[in-house]
Amino acid sequence: MAVSPPACPRRLLPLSLGLFQGALLLFFTLFVTYDEPSVQTEDASVVANQLYSIFPLFQDIQVMLVVGLGLLLTFLPRYGLSVLTHNFLLLNFSTQWALMLQGLLHRFHHSQVHLDLHNLLTAEFAAVTVLISVGAVLGRTSPCQLLVVAACEVPVYLASEWAIITQLGVLDVGGTITIHVFSCYFGLGVSKALFGAVRWPTHPKETPTPRSDLMSLVGTLILWVFWPSFVAVLCQPGDAQHRAILNTLLAMSASALTTVVASSLLERDGKLSPGHLQNGSLAGGVVIGAVANMAVSPVTALTLGSLSAMVCVLGFRFLTPFLARKLLLQDQCGIHNLHGLPGILGAAASAVAILAASEDTPRSQVSPTRGNASRAVWGHWGDSAAGGQALCQVAGLAVAIGGSLIAGLLTGAALRLPCLAQPSERLCLDDSLYFKMMDQAGSQGPGSTAEEGVLALKEQV
Amino acid sequence: MAVSPPACPRRLLPLSLGLFQGALLLFFTLFVTYDEPSVQTEDASVVANQLYSIFPLFQDIQVMLVVGLGLLLTFLPRYGLSVLTHNFLLLNFSTQWALMLQGLLHRFHHSQVHLDLHNLLTAEFAAVTVLISVGAVLGRTSPCQLLVVAACEVPVYLASEWAIITQLGVLDVGGTITIHVFSCYFGLGVSKALFGAVRWPTHPKETPTPRSDLMSLVGTLILWVFWPSFVAVLCQPGDAQHRAILNTLLAMSASALTTVVASSLLERDGKLSPGHLQNGSLAGGVVIGAVANMAVSPVTALTLGSLSAMVCVLGFRFLTPFLARKLLLQDQCGIHNLHGLPGILGAAASAVAILAASEDTPRSQVSPTRGNASRAVWGHWGDSAAGGQALCQVAGLAVAIGGSLIAGLLTGAALRLPCLAQPSERLCLDDSLYFKMMDQAGSQGPGSTAEEGVLALKEQV
Amino acid sequence: MAVSPPACPRRLLPLSLGLFQGALLLFFTLFVTYDEPSVQTEDASVVANQLYSIFPLFQDIQVMLVVGLGLLLTFLPRYGLSVLTHNFLLLNFSTQWALMLQGLLHRFHHSQVHLDLHNLLTAEFAAVTVLISVGAVLGRTSPCQLLVVAACEVPVYLASEWAIITQLGVLDVGGTITIHVFSCYFGLGVSKALFGAVRWPTHPKETPTPRSDLMSLVGTLILWVFWPSFVAVLCQPGDAQHRAILNTLLAMSASALTTVVASSLLERDGKLSPGHLQNGSLAGGVVIGAVANMAVSPVTALTLGSLSAMVCVLGFRFLTPFLARKLLLQDQCGIHNLHGLPGILGAAASAVAILAASEDTPRSQVSPTRGNASRAVWGHWGDSAAGGQALCQVAGLAVAIGGSLIAGLLTGAALRLPCLAQPSERLCLDDSLYFKMMDQAGSQGPGSTAEEGVLALKEQV
Repeated sequence: MAVSPPACPRRLLPLSLGLFQGALLLFFTLFVTYDEPSVQTEDASVVANQLYSIFPLFQDIQVMLVVGLGLLLTFLPRYGLSVLTHNFLLLNFSTQWALMLQGLLHRFHHSQVHLDLHNLLTAEFAAVTVLISVGAVLGRTSPCQLLVVAACEVPVYLASEWAIITQLGVLDVGGTITIHVFSCYFGLGVSKALFGAVRWPTHPKETPTPRSDLMSLVGTLILWVFWPSFVAVLCQPGDAQHRAILNTLLAMSASALTTVVASSLLERDGKLSPGHLQNGSLAGGVVIGAVANMAVSPVTALTLGSLSAMVCVLGFRFLTPFLARKLLLQDQCGIHNLHGLPGILGAAASAVAILAASEDTPRSQVSPTRGNASRAVWGHWGDSAAGGQALCQVAGLAVAIGGSLIAGLLTGAALRLPCLAQPSERLCLDDSLYFKMMDQAGSQGPGSTAEEGVLALKEQV
Repeated sequence: MAVSPPACPRRLLPLSLGLFQGALLLFFTLFVTYDEPSVQTEDASVVANQLYSIFPLFQDIQVMLVVGLGLLLTFLPRYGLSVLTHNFLLLNFSTQWALMLQGLLHRFHHSQVHLDLHNLLTAEFAAVTVLISVGAVLGRTSPCQLLVVAACEVPVYLASEWAIITQLGVLDVGGTITIHVFSCYFGLGVSKALFGAVRWPTHPKETPTPRSDLMSLVGTLILWVFWPSFVAVLCQPGDAQHRAILNTLLAMSASALTTVVASSLLERDGKLSPGHLQNGSLAGGVVIGAVANMAVSPVTALTLGSLSAMVCVLGFRFLTPFLARKLLLQDQCGIHNLHGLPGILGAAASAVAILAASEDTPRSQVSPTRGNASRAVWGHWGDSAAGGQALCQVAGLAVAIGGSLIAGLLTGAALRLPCLAQPSERLCLDDSLYFKMMDQAGSQGPGSTAEEGVLALKEQV
Repeated sequence: MAVSPPACPRRLLPLSLGLFQGALLLFFTLFVTYDEPSVQTEDASVVANQLYSIFPLFQDIQVMLVVGLGLLLTFLPRYGLSVLTHNFLLLNFSTQWALMLQGLLHRFHHSQVHLDLHNLLTAEFAAVTVLISVGAVLGRTSPCQLLVVAACEVPVYLASEWAIITQLGVLDVGGTITIHVFSCYFGLGVSKALFGAVRWPTHPKETPTPRSDLMSLVGTLILWVFWPSFVAVLCQPGDAQHRAILNTLLAMSASALTTVVASSLLERDGKLSPGHLQNGSLAGGVVIGAVANMAVSPVTALTLGSLSAMVCVLGFRFLTPFLARKLLLQDQCGIHNLHGLPGILGAAASAVAILAASEDTPRSQVSPTRGNASRAVWGHWGDSAAGGQALCQVAGLAVAIGGSLIAGLLTGAALRLPCLAQPSERLCLDDSLYFKMMDQAGSQGPGSTAEEGVLALKEQV
């Protein structure tokens, strides 16, 4: 069962990763230091307070990405170890790669890069895009291919984020446009260019078991709980952050209920689909990112949460099969339904919210907003300025979709290089391809229990 | 295996949930706003500090309710998806429902409801009672029935909490009386009225497997870790909160050890029962709620933790079978042992602690206590006042038990409506009743491995 | 299958635990109180701020020890319940025991012990050493034996920590020397003295299944996420703490990537070993403890993380089999590879970092460091002082290794007492030895599915 690919590609992963580690060490040796320690006691207490305000949120986000997202992807019953490991590997690789690229960009202007928790956080946000994108090609790609995706996507993300936030001045504190929409279309581009016109029958190992669905649902719940931290961590402390947390909580609560409604209505016999639940409950977090810290009313957050869950479930029911049939587009995890559609909805909502805010709210309520990562604080506006800003939001959406699609298609084409060792359809979706299983039974997935079944039978018969 | 109930009830769940969502949106549109943003920088820093003091505890509680409690209930081996989903659905539904009811009550006095994290927290506390109560009827009820329980229990809880805390002035910062005792007897009332005099043999799907016991134990551990946040979140910042955390930590540590002692002594061959561990370790958190922020000594917390674990394990060993035999009372999760008995013990302890405090401690140590949710800060007392307060604690306990039992019985009677689609005994306790399983094997629970067993056998034989 | 040991040892566990609980209650009654509540409002706000700065980190550490470490050890497929329970029991027992011993020591100097969160934290650190040490003898020891290990190890740890930190003035904020190295060699000593020259063939229940590997990996990820809190919790607030967190994050990220490289290079066909991943990813956290708050550059943290992962994976591949063959040393969890080797590396690194700091950094950067638990704040140094301090670090390492090995060997010899009921090789590594399984199928481990396999077959054949 455990057939090995030829030796050369087998060494490609450790060698390229090792080289990358070397380059990273060199870069850090030359350019990166910590901030000078503060010499005055008063400063020390400021540093301490800053730390206490950001560190718990940072930890929440780490739990989301490492544990929550990892578990969410374990719905493939025999691919759990691989999915957790690849997710973990990609997170670390992409974060380090983003740190390096950010540092290089920074170096053009300054002599030394001063590393702090905020740098790490923005680098981790870059890594999130990779983790989302690879969901489209999950299970049918080798780790080397995934690393190439990460290597290509991170710089494109940094460029796109710079264009959207810094140049266009788009408001998107929770990453609806810059992270979710971007990574979704990047991933779809990769999938299209990599798999081309192949149409596979459903792989027997693709069908979730109740147990793998359960693990995946636990992942969803972890993501659901900590999502407010993800949206609010880069907000300005004070009202804006408080509001971002509340909006996210409301949107996620609404999308949880609406998912049950929509999923139950769409199935003939009123049953729920585990896949709908695993994704739809999170749609509220995606949609709310762009408006979370704006002066929207609570009902807006609830409505957006409900709509996004509806759109997500409808996408799973109708759009994904349609795209698979017409465009032959593979989307293993349904990232288009969880990140693409709600992301577009959220971007549109942010434009509307800005137009509405210019009409009926005092200016001071809109102003305490801030873009996503390294951005200018955005000031007050009148009617015309609001129109301009709303246009910017739409333009930012267009840039995110266009740029990511093109870059994704190019990246996907690069993944077809034979040395990247794409697994064959027969062997894919199985942990034994990448993990040394200690027993023969183990290499058959959860087959040890099957063996027991046989033994038990022999004893009885 | 997957037999569908008639179409009408199948649509009841999404339609009623959808209607509820609509009503909620309407209510929020008309009445709910956020606080005005603070215009002064100084205020902003106050808002930020308040947020940093409550938000980490709030997240801890969310993890407890969504992940920890969900996993704790997965001890039914083929009902894991349903349990996690129903728990999640009920939490969201009840929180929104409590927000709406709280808002309506508030509306009688003020023009607008200003939503903040504190409102959400108290609404979530109302939802906790529902999550506890449904443990008594777990697995043999449909989602529609569970929603009816939530719809009935939340208003009764709000009324009971108002009577106990606001009117009687009971001290109960951790919800021992208002949450645990209340929800326990509400749940038992529902169970009695719903199941009546039926006595079932043990359902084959009711027996935990080692794997489902393991998942359930993980849930226990998550609850165990975060319980101090649940008890302390509504305490006054400063000493009282610090003491509440320490008391809870001590009580839970003691109950963990005592559970092992008690469980091991009660079984003939000295083995442990997984069910005892899963519940007894948490009894310390239930018992300590009413006295957590009082000026009790550390040894009191340890003693209460030990006693509660003992009571809980004894309840599982003797009382539950006795009640099932004599009163034909079904208590699937043993909520009477985890929430009822330790809750009563905690209420009694709070009365004693108040009497003791009036004798031997200076007044200032007792005063920094505060009731559970929206309540008056409670002042100093002399000997007679202490006696009065102790009486109040007992009266509060009586109100909680009496009110909840009556309301629970009425709710349970309502659940017998045929349109609520109670599952038949043959089909219950199985995920396939509520979830679309993608493969035939899947609909048999973890049967895919069984299928493999057969295949493996055919290859060998 | 479920054979019971004789009755007498079966009662030893609950009776000794019960006695211990009684002694603890007595001790707390006589000697332990809480701090006096602060009477001034200003003080209350200071108390509150201290709480908010330490409590989230404390909770993170609780999650690590209770959930993360517990899950990490569930790689034994039929021993998951036992492992989680024993870990939980030992944590609580050792923490209470350490609280009592610390309190007794304190009593020699003062009249009353004032309990606060900081005391609990240092007691929990003592408990960590026990949790690590028993990894060496996991699965082949009875709970009574584990309690004896805890009873012996905690006082030795306290003495060793006093000698290393208070007397020698070793800098070790993250416990690299005092916790990791100490507990590793203590555990190896226990294993050697307990198992002596026995050499077992691999037990059939020792081989992880894909599912148990998955659970274990989830445990690793939880530990990985929260490790920075463990290292930083005792640092001085401000720069030192910020730096400790950053250093730990960098080291752990580097060790995650390097583990993949090393594991993939060492296996013939380039596959990964789950065991390497589960341990190597955490080596960075072990190694960084001693230097985390020093003024080292970011590249140092990355390098140490990479080296430690390499050392850990090499240890698993070559050293563990070598020790098992030559010294007949059993190390079930490979604690020597995760705690011993990276710990020694970290201790050496701390000596080098101190020497380097005296040469090329201004004094103020090195000074804001602090030892592990109850220690003197360490001041500035010149060249000769640096040399002395570096020597101290090495001396501390020697004390930790020597003291723990001797004490471990003695403890291991005590474990051979027959009344401690060591399980026979035939029965060990199975939950049914310590847990009452409710069904016959359950007592065969995950055998219920096996039974289903048979049933499904009978229906088909």
